[in-house]
Amino acid sequence: MEEKKVLERMQAHLDNLTKPRGSLGKLEEFCMKMAAIQGKAPPKIEKKGVYVFGGDHGIAEEGVSLYPKEVSFQMAMNMLSGGAGINALSDATGWEVVFVDSGIDWDFPPDDALNAKNRLVRAKVSRGSRNFCKESAMTEEETADALKKGRELAEDAAKRGYDMVAVGDMGIGNTSTAAALLIAAGMDADAIIDRGTGLDDKQLALKKRRIKEGVIARRPVKNADSILQELGAPDLAMMAGLILGLEGRGIACVLDGFPVSAAAYMAYMKNPKITDYLFAGHLSKVSGHKVVLSALNLAPIVSLEMHLGEGTGAVIGGFIVQLALACSLNMASFDSVDVSGKDVKEQKY
Amino acid sequence: MEEKKVLERMQAHLDNLTKPRGSLGKLEEFCMKMAAIQGKAPPKIEKKGVYVFGGDHGIAEEGVSLYPKEVSFQMAMNMLSGGAGINALSDATGWEVVFVDSGIDWDFPPDDALNAKNRLVRAKVSRGSRNFCKESAMTEEETADALKKGRELAEDAAKRGYDMVAVGDMGIGNTSTAAALLIAAGMDADAIIDRGTGLDDKQLALKKRRIKEGVIARRPVKNADSILQELGAPDLAMMAGLILGLEGRGIACVLDGFPVSAAAYMAYMKNPKITDYLFAGHLSKVSGHKVVLSALNLAPIVSLEMHLGEGTGAVIGGFIVQLALACSLNMASFDSVDVSGKDVKEQKY
Repeated sequence: MEEKKVLERMQAHLDNLTKPRGSLGKLEEFCMKMAAIQGKAPPKIEKKGVYVFGGDHGIAEEGVSLYPKEVSFQMAMNMLSGGAGINALSDATGWEVVFVDSGIDWDFPPDDALNAKNRLVRAKVSRGSRNFCKESAMTEEETADALKKGRELAEDAAKRGYDMVAVGDMGIGNTSTAAALLIAAGMDADAIIDRGTGLDDKQLALKKRRIKEGVIARRPVKNADSILQELGAPDLAMMAGLILGLEGRGIACVLDGFPVSAAAYMAYMKNPKITDYLFAGHLSKVSGHKVVLSALNLAPIVSLEMHLGEGTGAVIGGFIVQLALACSLNMASFDSVDVSGKDVKEQKY
Repeated sequence: MEEKKVLERMQAHLDNLTKPRGSLGKLEEFCMKMAAIQGKAPPKIEKKGVYVFGGDHGIAEEGVSLYPKEVSFQMAMNMLSGGAGINALSDATGWEVVFVDSGIDWDFPPDDALNAKNRLVRAKVSRGSRNFCKESAMTEEETADALKKGRELAEDAAKRGYDMVAVGDMGIGNTSTAAALLIAAGMDADAIIDRGTGLDDKQLALKKRRIKEGVIARRPVKNADSILQELGAPDLAMMAGLILGLEGRGIACVLDGFPVSAAAYMAYMKNPKITDYLFAGHLSKVSGHKVVLSALNLAPIVSLEMHLGEGTGAVIGGFIVQLALACSLNMASFDSVDVSGKDVKEQKY
């Protein structure tokens, strides 16, 4: 059906539910957006999957993070066995967790030795990005490979029957890589680079200097492919590929925090229409997140001062979209019950 | 256990989970508050109930609402049969819905003719409040009866095994009553009285004039009992009674929108300690809601521009508290898995 007709039908459906018109606030906006995405009214979400992209980042060797690099694969194993924050939240809100090894500097055991409760997608492009302060983060081939593998995950999501996909991140140094991408895209470095919660003034100054120097040294052309190649990483490029690949599939996509939103911005530079099917799951505590969401013109669904990554904010925000659809699907209509509010639906009763 | 020890234990528990310290943001604050409420670490929520208080309001005859009065009982029947917004959201997030007839001007059919999917509590104090522009809204006896029946519902919540109670409202004119209570308590009338979404400038001016005149005419003493009697209503007084009655029971209480928060403010005037176990489920679109939440020193969990009432915002916010506890209960700890992040938990990894 033509989008205009779907939206008219959805609006009429919402206005016929036993409530004052518009009184579900943003929940009604979510219903309208989902109707447009699915091309039907009312829309449904029956199956949801969160893809968590793990990768190592060469920039980590510059001392921009307090964590040792091995935390990336240790946390990947934790996520596969069901012990991470994203697992607890996904179990409680009905998401399947898929961990994607985009470029972790570690060899995962074979499936029979993995003992995983969740699915591992083996999509390693390299053993992590190179340190962009010293050289290009990826080769042209690696960049293209990461984008392609991301697009293949959009196909995977469609095959699995996901109506909604959340995108999460995990990897030491990924916020520094994300910041570099956005600075190269023209955003203000001081608004974008975050202290995290552990860096002191001296460490923050070092982080800012290293990232700015790296961006200047690499001189990417101002397009997403070049920026990703010079300053990016397999995980962030693969997220961008997934987001781009979801176009036209009727699948909604929920962004998590700063690194994921930076990847989405790269996708947006390649195709601004992606925002038609994107939701910003949450606003994180990372200061640059607000800047990039504003550039994407997306309003966060919740704002809970989280800064864990892994998709944790995305699955909460995406679940609230599903709650909105539950109202639209399960509430009685004025046509079906005897409530005298139909003609004055505009008012709080 | 002494509260200080419970909080120390809870903080240690949160800091031992496989995540950077503090990275779950407000979810960690919710865990701490729930630990204090339950006096144990980590706390759990196994059963949740939302009490929706319905009542009619004499002030409605002054033309402050566009809805006819019969919508109160029609919506009550809709809620009992499972067709209202609160039903859809409660089903999706695991809340039992209890409808409380505090003072609806209608005789509910007997149980065998009711055909209800949800529980009806028959706690009618009167057939609604009187019009406070003309006379006292309740008698002293009605006020005391409503508060007492509210306290009995706290006993009911404990007997049913609820770990968390949400409070919702439904009834034509209840926002005007709520505004009158808060103005009498000293809040600024222009910040408190809302247009709703349907009133034009002239109707809003009339609503403001009627409410202000009513408050002046009734001249309540500045204490909650007198304010409730002169300007209140059985439903709002009963909510206050429930909130007060939850003290010391280890049960958390989640507020919905403006009318419920006004009732909570009446309870707060009687006992300021109630905020120890209160959560503000959401910030609604009603302009006075922000003012009263700020007076209660409660930060809303979500802000989705909803203005439906019924407890719809409360059940979403309360569910997010439960998600916070799911993280605390189900995530792996640094002690149990091999993750090298324990000593640098302060940093985003």
